[in-house]
Amino acid sequence: MVGLGQCCWDQVGLVEQWPHPDAKTELLASCEQAGGPVATALVTLARLGVRTAFFGAVGGDEAGRLIRWSLVAEGVDCRLLQVDPEGESQRAWVIADRTTGKRNIFWKRGARRPFHLTDETAELIAAAKVLLLDDLDFDAALAAARAAREAGVTTVLDGGSLRPRTAELLPLIDHLVVSEKFARQWTGRPEPPAALEPLAAFGGTVTVTAGAEGCWSLLAGEVIHQPAFGVDVIDTTGCGDVFHGGYVFGLLQAWPLPAVLAFASACAALKARGLGGQAAIAGLDETLRFLARETGDIRWTTLRITE
Amino acid sequence: MVGLGQCCWDQVGLVEQWPHPDAKTELLASCEQAGGPVATALVTLARLGVRTAFFGAVGGDEAGRLIRWSLVAEGVDCRLLQVDPEGESQRAWVIADRTTGKRNIFWKRGARRPFHLTDETAELIAAAKVLLLDDLDFDAALAAARAAREAGVTTVLDGGSLRPRTAELLPLIDHLVVSEKFARQWTGRPEPPAALEPLAAFGGTVTVTAGAEGCWSLLAGEVIHQPAFGVDVIDTTGCGDVFHGGYVFGLLQAWPLPAVLAFASACAALKARGLGGQAAIAGLDETLRFLARETGDIRWTTLRITE
Ligand SMILES: Nc1ncnc2c1ncn2[C@@H]1O[C@H](COP(=O)(O)OP(=O)(O)OP(=O)(O)O)[C@@H](O)[C@H]1O
Ligand SMILES: Nc1ncnc2c1ncn2[C@@H]1O[C@H](COP(=O)(O)OP(=O)(O)OP(=O)(O)O)[C@@H](O)[C@H]1O
Ligand SMILES: [Mg+2]
Ligand SMILES: [Mg+2]
Repeated sequence: MVGLGQCCWDQVGLVEQWPHPDAKTELLASCEQAGGPVATALVTLARLGVRTAFFGAVGGDEAGRLIRWSLVAEGVDCRLLQVDPEGESQRAWVIADRTTGKRNIFWKRGARRPFHLTDETAELIAAAKVLLLDDLDFDAALAAARAAREAGVTTVLDGGSLRPRTAELLPLIDHLVVSEKFARQWTGRPEPPAALEPLAAFGGTVTVTAGAEGCWSLLAGEVIHQPAFGVDVIDTTGCGDVFHGGYVFGLLQAWPLPAVLAFASACAALKARGLGGQAAIAGLDETLRFLARETGDIRWTTLRITE
Repeated sequence: MVGLGQCCWDQVGLVEQWPHPDAKTELLASCEQAGGPVATALVTLARLGVRTAFFGAVGGDEAGRLIRWSLVAEGVDCRLLQVDPEGESQRAWVIADRTTGKRNIFWKRGARRPFHLTDETAELIAAAKVLLLDDLDFDAALAAARAAREAGVTTVLDGGSLRPRTAELLPLIDHLVVSEKFARQWTGRPEPPAALEPLAAFGGTVTVTAGAEGCWSLLAGEVIHQPAFGVDVIDTTGCGDVFHGGYVFGLLQAWPLPAVLAFASACAALKARGLGGQAAIAGLDETLRFLARETGDIRWTTLRITE
């Protein structure tokens, strides 16, 4: 599968409790790692054993080198990563609150040439089974979604927040998997299940994730809910990104939607055990054993997995 | 003059407004620079034209190199900076809120050998006119304050927050210049002027700074208040540190306390025009012209300044 979108260098700090403004707070722990919705989803898929290629852009700075090295170390194909030698990479500072499990992300786009679709990228997209997108670099996302649609490649959009031109992209999307915030911005409905129907008007499968509340989806017109799995939460940074990785894994297996959602939720929950968006992402065996244990359904460990 | 205490590598981001927990906020601007109360006070003094030496500790990491280079570039003598090759430097992430001018600091001490007083350091302290201290590395601060007291060197303590052994240090201090938070923690009195009398019991001159409210001090038993100067505030990170630099400058000039407080407040206000603790610190001419203009007292520009 291939992914096109954001990659980022994250510095993550853990605090006992979210401070009032105007405070000085000593961090309990900190770390640095690659992040970004699509990049993190691809790391998830790589750890699950899927061959992945990443399309995105970095600057010629230290953060760009760190992002590339760390994706390559995970086995993500970065040969078509675009490096703007004069440009800056996207960066984020994340403060994770140990008490609530919530995180606050401060990010910086970084001035650099946006990713542009090349012939080589378009060919790889057309040859893939699934294309995962976010829409920060909108022009590239639109061109990629068109190339995918033409070639009959399944498209998945990670909608984090509504952006000015998101609506143009939707007709080219098969699976829309969005955050609560996106659902609220798009539909004006604060409750995720109530947002599903208006969202579904775009034509494909729609899922809204809502943190510890789990996720909601529409299956043959019926609302289905997958609760979040219980883990000892350290940090929920990247849970949504990892959820998307697990969701794409389920699509590649051609599982029914409820199994896709359960699997994606398990991936996301396991991630929350560690600090930062990627450190604690689990491999396939661990995820399936976790699912079998949590659901009491032993079939998770006897599945035949196809590449 | 010499300073012993914290130095830090700061990454500073500006936001339109302080977010609710669990948000994603794009930074309006960001920068990196050296920070830390004593290091920033020394940079202030160096820009004002005072010869300064810094005693503190860094790790053998990139942050440590950046801290050293940037202090050396300001003309601060760093020959007795102690580098722990295996250790980590102190770092901070600062989020500055453009709407309120307040900042939230997340910091990390960094695992490294603390600064320890050497014969050479003690000699330089004994030869100085003023020693500025904070008390994060408590043992070194205590030893330095003793060496200063023995040699008749004026000691100034920057009290940011009350620490377990702060009380041991106070008898060795001539000028206690503390934050509102310290004053509240020490005396239980939420109002800075009400905290002055109990604070003054330690024996020296006491000043409490309270951000945009200005500062309060005791002069011959009377409470005096120096309002903050009005500037277009971008970021108040380091205002307290720069205030201490200006305060020490006033002591070196042997000015009366009200002039010391006015000068220190001007230094701090000018700093607030820029992002980060050090970028906008002004030189002497600019500070004196600002004071003359703001106070209407032309004498600020005709002062004879001694080195
Ligand atoms: N505290 C938690 N415990 C267990 N699982 C969680 C928790 N928080 C999130 N998850 C899982 O991750 C999924 C996605 O989380 P969420 O809705 O917060 O993503 P998001 O808003 O896209 O955030 P981001 O993209 O920043 O990670 C949830 O549906 C849930 O399955
Ligand atoms: N918004 C502001 N405008 C003008 N001057 C300010 C402002 N905020 C602070 N100052 C000046 O700086 C002085 C010190 O500020 P403050 O009391 O916030 O320091 P602090 O609490 O020690 O913070 P820090 O050490 O983190 O900088 C104030 O007394 C005032 O003179
Ligand atoms: Mg998301
Ligand atoms: Mg201070």
